Amino acid sequence: MSSPQTFKIASIPGDGIGTEITEAAIQVLDKLASVDGSFGLEYTHFDWSSKAYLERGWYMPPDGMEQLQKHDAIYFGAVGWPDVPDHISLWSLILPIRKTMNQYVNVRPTRILPGTQSPLSSCQSNPGTLDWIIIRENSEGEYAGQGGTTHENSPHTIATELAIFSRVGIERIMRFAFETARSRERKKLTMVTKSNAQRHGMVLWDKIFYEVAAEYPDVEWDKMLVDAMTVRMVNNPASMDTIVATNLHADILSDLAAALSGSIGIAPSSNLDPTRKHPSMFEPIHGSAPDIAGKGVANPVGAFWSAAEMIRWLGEGRLNAGTFRFKSSSV
Amino acid sequence: MSSPQTFKIASIPGDGIGTEITEAAIQVLDKLASVDGSFGLEYTHFDWSSKAYLERGWYMPPDGMEQLQKHDAIYFGAVGWPDVPDHISLWSLILPIRKTMNQYVNVRPTRILPGTQSPLSSCQSNPGTLDWIIIRENSEGEYAGQGGTTHENSPHTIATELAIFSRVGIERIMRFAFETARSRERKKLTMVTKSNAQRHGMVLWDKIFYEVAAEYPDVEWDKMLVDAMTVRMVNNPASMDTIVATNLHADILSDLAAALSGSIGIAPSSNLDPTRKHPSMFEPIHGSAPDIAGKGVANPVGAFWSAAEMIRWLGEGRLNAGTFRFKSSSV
Ligand SMILES: CC(C)[C@H](C(=O)O)[C@@H](O)C(=O)O
Ligand SMILES: CC(C)[C@H](C(=O)O)[C@@H](O)C(=O)O
Repeated sequence: MSSPQTFKIASIPGDGIGTEITEAAIQVLDKLASVDGSFGLEYTHFDWSSKAYLERGWYMPPDGMEQLQKHDAIYFGAVGWPDVPDHISLWSLILPIRKTMNQYVNVRPTRILPGTQSPLSSCQSNPGTLDWIIIRENSEGEYAGQGGTTHENSPHTIATELAIFSRVGIERIMRFAFETARSRERKKLTMVTKSNAQRHGMVLWDKIFYEVAAEYPDVEWDKMLVDAMTVRMVNNPASMDTIVATNLHADILSDLAAALSGSIGIAPSSNLDPTRKHPSMFEPIHGSAPDIAGKGVANPVGAFWSAAEMIRWLGEGRLNAGTFRFKSSSV
Repeated sequence: MSSPQTFKIASIPGDGIGTEITEAAIQVLDKLASVDGSFGLEYTHFDWSSKAYLERGWYMPPDGMEQLQKHDAIYFGAVGWPDVPDHISLWSLILPIRKTMNQYVNVRPTRILPGTQSPLSSCQSNPGTLDWIIIRENSEGEYAGQGGTTHENSPHTIATELAIFSRVGIERIMRFAFETARSRERKKLTMVTKSNAQRHGMVLWDKIFYEVAAEYPDVEWDKMLVDAMTVRMVNNPASMDTIVATNLHADILSDLAAALSGSIGIAPSSNLDPTRKHPSMFEPIHGSAPDIAGKGVANPVGAFWSAAEMIRWLGEGRLNAGTFRFKSSSV
């Protein structure tokens, strides 16, 4: 057995229920460490929140990324608050962290946990039929952050959003997706695209998918258009296992997945830098939920599951540094 | 009573089940005209299909748009066939028609029809809880068709998709959405956006939404992020009525809506030029379904409902030219 090791965790509770669920998750993590005995956890708490922003004018100090870089992992609650426009809060905190820390993979498992009930009548007698892991491209695509506005405040304003897809960006996410699919029992990957309407970036996405697929003859795959994918998720959940999609498509599909599994409050999300040069970040997929914040009623399961994924990632790193295998949890 | 009028219909059955359902819809339309007696229908059938393309190398002849322009409406089956890359078939036919014919609105009603069953257990005892009309921006946004590829066939390929949002494009779709909401019993509009992550085009989208909303104080509205919208559609279908979203978002949400209503085979779609300078186009939202094509098992209800919307649109045009009011059907 390797000697006990202490992991440094940067904790960013953020806004709304983010603070409540982070507090709960840290209690669970500490208990886990003391029961397990093979690792310890040390936290730095960062008050990078919308509340702080409204008081002092910034979310993260200029050396924020350097501070984060000193940690083994980042634990994130939620960001977003009604008094701050969302595109300011998100582009001041969560999105720059994902990008700067090279967290190019976002892993989003969903399944129907005991005690929850799927809104789909087909799943209610057989919850095992919904067990997905969505691999989201997390560094480029529709979230590249480019685009702009011309003729502002005129009758002729034009604004653009530029989605950027690079060969390196697509190749690495496809490989990660195939590795994940291969590590799971069913060895099955569904690739999502919209290459019928979007004929540049999405056509490159398809092309590289086929190339990488050839390296994984043991993984069965199929291909869906993103619109038809929602239909299949509703009508035939058991037909899918691992799913790979672009930044925006997977953002949408992972919320749908969580809803179909019975609760948006239980789904975790791991923002991974598979090269392990930067800390990875773990957060529940739900938001700050201003409507229930402060009432002590937030569901902490998404936060617990995210914490579990963090420990798994750190543990795998210790045993197996440099690999990007990521097994689905069995929480 | 106005004297009988004959409407000229351009029929494009297209691919797969498109031909079967178009044939069925034309039988229904002819019967309707003969029973009603106040209008007649005259068809031109265009063999613009993937099969024809594979034989002769083109979908639509060079003067295709001029030929369509001579008609009062276009009735479209489906396009897409495994032997032709989708981005070629779609950008040769359906997408250029939508754009050239200034069909900047795509109206997609969904409800649970008698005899169908929603996969949502919450809807099964009360089908009336799901009754939506999705207003899709149909001329720009993520389907602007711009973007390109650099360093093709190299290890450094970069491809882009450029989504373009213009003030005129957003204003007109928002007005159409508010008019539609106003014409419905509940007078309620839900606007969908992703302005937290996409901070140029989507922020303009939000801004113009607020401006137009001020002109419709009698319409109640709310705003959703597209990812959270999927959760609300699953968990609280009764909380929504009219919905407005971008080209891509509404493409995804309308497929989800159809699935939640019980069948992708029943949902219609109206591609409208509200200025009535060009023919509008009516098509079921389902595709060519190669897997069941030729078997005579395709559900023609989406085609019938689309035909009904076509007659309504033509009839309203006759009575009320120039308005863009579009009442939800009560098929
Ligand atoms: C908060 C927001 C930027 C974020 C996203 O769109 O990525 C969220 O929806 C998520 O899924 O993590
Ligand atoms: C066929 C395809 C281009 C089309 C779209 O994405 O608009 C279809 O999915 C639809 O919804 O009408």
